[in-house]
Amino acid sequence: MTVILGIDPGSRKTGFGLVEVTQAGNRYVSSGVIKLPVDEPLALRLKVLAQALNEIIDEFSPTVAAIEEVFMNKSAGSALKLGQARGAAMVICATRELEVFEYATRQIKQAVVGTGGATKDQVQHMVTRLLRLPATPGEDASDALAAALCHISGEAVRRATGAQAFAMRRLK
Amino acid sequence: MTVILGIDPGSRKTGFGLVEVTQAGNRYVSSGVIKLPVDEPLALRLKVLAQALNEIIDEFSPTVAAIEEVFMNKSAGSALKLGQARGAAMVICATRELEVFEYATRQIKQAVVGTGGATKDQVQHMVTRLLRLPATPGEDASDALAAALCHISGEAVRRATGAQAFAMRRLK
Repeated sequence: MTVILGIDPGSRKTGFGLVEVTQAGNRYVSSGVIKLPVDEPLALRLKVLAQALNEIIDEFSPTVAAIEEVFMNKSAGSALKLGQARGAAMVICATRELEVFEYATRQIKQAVVGTGGATKDQVQHMVTRLLRLPATPGEDASDALAAALCHISGEAVRRATGAQAFAMRRLK
Repeated sequence: MTVILGIDPGSRKTGFGLVEVTQAGNRYVSSGVIKLPVDEPLALRLKVLAQALNEIIDEFSPTVAAIEEVFMNKSAGSALKLGQARGAAMVICATRELEVFEYATRQIKQAVVGTGGATKDQVQHMVTRLLRLPATPGEDASDALAAALCHISGEAVRRATGAQAFAMRRLK
């Protein structure tokens, strides 16, 4: 069975969510938030992120990572900070041999809610429903689970349309 | 003896330079450029960066990394890309237990050339002279060696002014 690790990267906290693809449907595995020690130097913050991701990969053995792409309506300073966290998360996943896919926020919302302009609330609501969760996960965990679900929905499409679509999507 | 790994991060190519601090002075060890495969997906580019840095750390056993901070006069898009490469490089160094220090471009130029507004040419010239190199290294390698030299000069100052200055510098 395949476990997908969804990641919602951020410079202060990074959401994660794991969904298993089974023959009976998608199964919720785990989710949460990695809080980075914002008062520490950047290298230490990124090390905390790396250690947490490595522990998650050790525990749940995901083979695919789905990482949210980020808004561009940010200052260069925030974009740099976000990029640093995002690059660190991606390189950890890649060196641990996960296949890494990137999805734009709009793509994720479209896949989970049905509209690219959905609100955070709507994403939380649909994630809770689609994974039959007893309680609504927090925003960051919910966004990460949505990224995983987005990958799974695309995966189903790719299976239907064959290997070429799969290859194109990987390289884009 | 301490080996310092200087890094000049970039989304297309990342310069590196190693300088050993010996009792006889600073000794050039190695330098070069890690070229990222720009046509590949980001995760693969960052994986190439990680593998190259890991090989450099395996071969030369640096205990300190000095990483250039980056200009802010960039678009949010370029800042994000640069941040991703920078975050990946930092997290690799940090997980390999190197002590990571960040230096602003102006600080590096000030330390190596004597003026924060120095040109790339002047940096290359001074790096070549300070390390008694038979030929001038390329721009990226030269900037990385300059970052290492900047750390070493600061280290000397810290030794002179005592442990408190050292601690403050680490935490800023």
